[in-house]
Amino acid sequence: MRLQVPVTLRWADLDAYGHVNNVEVLRLLEEARIAAFWSHGPDSADTAVLDSGPDAATHTFVVSTEVEYLLPIGYHRDPVVVELWIGHLGGASIDVCYRIMAPADHRGGASDEPVAHVQARTTIVVVDAATGRPRRLSDLERAAWQPYLEPPIEFRHRGGR
Amino acid sequence: MRLQVPVTLRWADLDAYGHVNNVEVLRLLEEARIAAFWSHGPDSADTAVLDSGPDAATHTFVVSTEVEYLLPIGYHRDPVVVELWIGHLGGASIDVCYRIMAPADHRGGASDEPVAHVQARTTIVVVDAATGRPRRLSDLERAAWQPYLEPPIEFRHRGGR
Amino acid sequence: MRLQVPVTLRWADLDAYGHVNNVEVLRLLEEARIAAFWSHGPDSADTAVLDSGPDAATHTFVVSTEVEYLLPIGYHRDPVVVELWIGHLGGASIDVCYRIMAPADHRGGASDEPVAHVQARTTIVVVDAATGRPRRLSDLERAAWQPYLEPPIEFRHRGGR
Amino acid sequence: MRLQVPVTLRWADLDAYGHVNNVEVLRLLEEARIAAFWSHGPDSADTAVLDSGPDAATHTFVVSTEVEYLLPIGYHRDPVVVELWIGHLGGASIDVCYRIMAPADHRGGASDEPVAHVQARTTIVVVDAATGRPRRLSDLERAAWQPYLEPPIEFRHRGGR
Repeated sequence: MRLQVPVTLRWADLDAYGHVNNVEVLRLLEEARIAAFWSHGPDSADTAVLDSGPDAATHTFVVSTEVEYLLPIGYHRDPVVVELWIGHLGGASIDVCYRIMAPADHRGGASDEPVAHVQARTTIVVVDAATGRPRRLSDLERAAWQPYLEPPIEFRHRGGR
Repeated sequence: MRLQVPVTLRWADLDAYGHVNNVEVLRLLEEARIAAFWSHGPDSADTAVLDSGPDAATHTFVVSTEVEYLLPIGYHRDPVVVELWIGHLGGASIDVCYRIMAPADHRGGASDEPVAHVQARTTIVVVDAATGRPRRLSDLERAAWQPYLEPPIEFRHRGGR
Repeated sequence: MRLQVPVTLRWADLDAYGHVNNVEVLRLLEEARIAAFWSHGPDSADTAVLDSGPDAATHTFVVSTEVEYLLPIGYHRDPVVVELWIGHLGGASIDVCYRIMAPADHRGGASDEPVAHVQARTTIVVVDAATGRPRRLSDLERAAWQPYLEPPIEFRHRGGR
Repeated sequence: MRLQVPVTLRWADLDAYGHVNNVEVLRLLEEARIAAFWSHGPDSADTAVLDSGPDAATHTFVVSTEVEYLLPIGYHRDPVVVELWIGHLGGASIDVCYRIMAPADHRGGASDEPVAHVQARTTIVVVDAATGRPRRLSDLERAAWQPYLEPPIEFRHRGGR
């Protein structure tokens, strides 16, 4: 099962080409991830996983990010939709996968069917705030996220060759 | 051979933990890449590769990014140093590799020797502005970038199993 | 008459206090202004006033900004509403006035009635792209913006004494 | 006496016109202010005034900002210099005044003498973190900042008529 998180673009996201800047794309993903972690799953998992404020008992840290830019994202008044799912539940880590869906209008096609413009993965480690060390995901957390587990993204391009 | 590009941090780069936000890390890499492409190589390669303004004959687009966050980057008045090299010269693409070097002071070590805090790769495609299609790197461009060709980064983590 | 422009907050707008950072507040105003100029008034005024892209016949430049932060803006899922009107139509300039309205929930009040959190003014000069010089607002532009003309903001604080 | 704070520009500060975006100008001022408050004055004043982290005994809040954009700021590799002084010491507030100095090269002049591109004021209120209420500046703080007291900026433009 995938979450569908709408994220509103801003003019300031655009670069001189009139497309969302490639770094700002990561902001859109961050925005979707925080919204998703905040609002889904049982309260306890919510607290554990999402609560990345400096006072929380559990911190979450991004340890790795991979992004493929498939099509440039132009400006749309309607939010883009970030599809979001879990690609892997590790011992102390979560792979969050994303696809940014938007109309393919820049190609002048007849259809307004949203197509994938970006696909990405972020690996997040869950850290015990008291010790500063990674801690295992609890059974409750696993149960909460299990329904969103789907096959991870197959990236087309990973450098050279 | 690697380029050593100093990049000055800003307070606004920091998040609530007092570390450079993981998205802002990409800005530091972008800053280093633009500075490097601007100032090195012969003029013609310069124009071809770097000149990503909307009026240039050649555009460059980021098609893929991969980042590993090894250590959190705290605030330093002295610039961090972005080591930058070419991991692969493709037909129409360049893999730019980076390591962000900063003192390891947050671990209270005796040494101020800079250590790698981030390693990353960005794949850039060179596009003919007139046709909007990727074009082959010229011999001149290859010759200009050859000295900076070094083995690509071996990423430790690419998503769960 | 005032325009009511909804603007969606982002987590990245917040600073370490959990409030929208004072510089990001200007981004919210920019976002509202661009949305307003884009979608209102006759087409010709639209083109003339809004079209601040580098290829347009008319450019608009911000020459002066004044902002008063009345209450900190906390995070809300619902968009804040930026009230926007014209405080003055000059020869070649427009004073855009704003109030950011949001629920006063941070004070724990019983009411969810939106209250003003920020008031601001931006003065914009209209420039002929060909000459690079300010040009007079046309009669058409004046007519288009006349309905939004209201008394300007009275700022409480303008530095010392 | 004025402080001279160098601030390094970034490519991402530029908008589609190739000038520093008007909102990013505020970031440059913020950067200069934080650097200045951190490094000047006696330690106690330093702590009191600057320490705007969420754990400090004293918080500082921006309550009002005024900016005049005199000339567009183009990209320079050399840092711009932010001149910074105190325009007014109030009971619980400080007016920080700024001028951003950069070469006037965009006008093709013969001279590289830096000229003012921006002038601005930020009013900051000092708040007791325990009570959340403004508190009076201490004698120590006044003494620390007295040397930087100079006449405030005379703004040319404050909205029509």
